[in-house]
Amino acid sequence: MCVACDHTIHRSSHHFGWNRDFAPVLTAKSGSTIHFECSDSSAGQLDAQSTVQSVIDLDFGKINPVTGPVFVEGAAPGDVLKVMLRKFIPSGIGWTANIPGFGLLADQFREPALHIWTYDPATMAPALYGPGGKVPLKPFAGTIGLAMAEPGLHAIVPPRRVGGNMDIRDLAEGTTLYLPVEVEGALFSIGDTHAAQGDGEVCGTAIESRMDVEVTLEVIKGRPLASPRFTTPGPVTRHLDGAGYEVTTGIGPDLMTGAREALMRMIDLLSAEHGLAPVDAYMLCSVCADLRISEIVDMPNWVVSLYFPRIVLQ
Amino acid sequence: MCVACDHTIHRSSHHFGWNRDFAPVLTAKSGSTIHFECSDSSAGQLDAQSTVQSVIDLDFGKINPVTGPVFVEGAAPGDVLKVMLRKFIPSGIGWTANIPGFGLLADQFREPALHIWTYDPATMAPALYGPGGKVPLKPFAGTIGLAMAEPGLHAIVPPRRVGGNMDIRDLAEGTTLYLPVEVEGALFSIGDTHAAQGDGEVCGTAIESRMDVEVTLEVIKGRPLASPRFTTPGPVTRHLDGAGYEVTTGIGPDLMTGAREALMRMIDLLSAEHGLAPVDAYMLCSVCADLRISEIVDMPNWVVSLYFPRIVLQ
Repeated sequence: MCVACDHTIHRSSHHFGWNRDFAPVLTAKSGSTIHFECSDSSAGQLDAQSTVQSVIDLDFGKINPVTGPVFVEGAAPGDVLKVMLRKFIPSGIGWTANIPGFGLLADQFREPALHIWTYDPATMAPALYGPGGKVPLKPFAGTIGLAMAEPGLHAIVPPRRVGGNMDIRDLAEGTTLYLPVEVEGALFSIGDTHAAQGDGEVCGTAIESRMDVEVTLEVIKGRPLASPRFTTPGPVTRHLDGAGYEVTTGIGPDLMTGAREALMRMIDLLSAEHGLAPVDAYMLCSVCADLRISEIVDMPNWVVSLYFPRIVLQ
Repeated sequence: MCVACDHTIHRSSHHFGWNRDFAPVLTAKSGSTIHFECSDSSAGQLDAQSTVQSVIDLDFGKINPVTGPVFVEGAAPGDVLKVMLRKFIPSGIGWTANIPGFGLLADQFREPALHIWTYDPATMAPALYGPGGKVPLKPFAGTIGLAMAEPGLHAIVPPRRVGGNMDIRDLAEGTTLYLPVEVEGALFSIGDTHAAQGDGEVCGTAIESRMDVEVTLEVIKGRPLASPRFTTPGPVTRHLDGAGYEVTTGIGPDLMTGAREALMRMIDLLSAEHGLAPVDAYMLCSVCADLRISEIVDMPNWVVSLYFPRIVLQ
């Protein structure tokens, strides 16, 4: 029940992949506020009753549906679409999976794994993970994007200059996102909602969770943008940082290798000090630990650090 | 005046580069607390009276002196040195420079530039930057490391598995750092103190500032470590995050390119919205903006984000 919304788009009005020729499900004026019902990234294939077998059986042709597209009146190539993320309405159920072939350590974690989460959508208290783990929640949309100028169907997984599957943890309530418009009407879609994620989304999935989102869309003329940018109205990590962090590093000339090494060392640390199975540590890092570039100038070696919030295992 | 210190090492007891054959300036028992006087990374070549000509005249043979080395009794290859960063005593003066050939956008910023900072070491109130800029301070040591097993002189600039010039912003008061020991006595040194820095240190320098540091060194036997790790006792960005962030992104298959693009777009944004000269925006990002890896799994495109704290220009 969105008292300020002009439109509602139901979960059934979704598409897979991006295509400038998809018919809009709604034409809206600039300034409209819209209630989007979003599916989780499995399009409902995984739910509270799922098992590891459900991960094996996933139909990848139905991954990451996005609700839309919305044709925003007046939006034209070269403009910017201002996306105000007003409200997230979470469902209380979610999942995190290790999907073979996907994730920063896909070469090391080859077996499927699944964790089902439940959380209280009213209190949004931290979600439990095995014995002792408590993951603070912060809902956001993993995929927010526009159609690209290039015709044809474009895969949903990679994010691009018009946004898409960016998986940026801070695209949360209160954030304003700016996206470059490349087609008439912008053709805005949103989905892939998450209840929590760390910067990096290292195992490839977050707390994947169906939820609804209220968004205001506004066209800004004549200020071209090269890639997405956003503004957060306040702090972004205070739900995580209260007890400080355990931090591991990867040091060397390649940022990707550094990120992988920092993650491997954190998995080792969590396994040794908290008795987590390595795959559980991997999935836990994905939903709460942050990859940061500590330095990128001390030639030829850079430092990538993985920040694991201590509050999760206290 | 360190009431709990066992030893003081003066600024004059420093070395350039790392070498397992450097004679220790002190032999200390495990558990000792030591007061280190540290120089700034120019070894005093830049000070309050310096000009851009001073940057041009820099003697790179005298860059980044570190105070030490300390031989810690009982430390042997395969051990870990636990480094408790107890206290920073800042000087109140600092500098940030664009040094030609150095920095994430060295190809674009080819001219030397220098900003001299003054700050109140008693209150540690934010330091002023041009009209309107206020940079929150958080002192830390850019270079903390041990001698490597390999003989010979090793350059000071790159960090390595034994630490060194890591430039990790959170190696600040209260943090405990763990370093792998590769030689008898560990041979610990510290220097390159900074009054503030963003994750990435994008222009290549922070608020470089002479200060003293009190450190407790303790040997941990029999728990080998592949690369540095550390524990922070509490939040790490609350000095920056109060007013939220402006964030730019770089999206694509290479993390280094993504980091460069996010930074270029932030420089454009700060120039357009706050009238900063590009080189001033570049240096300002280096002392307060954070490079984060938002996602590293959505093949083949990753998202690197640069978080600029809005409090700095409010």
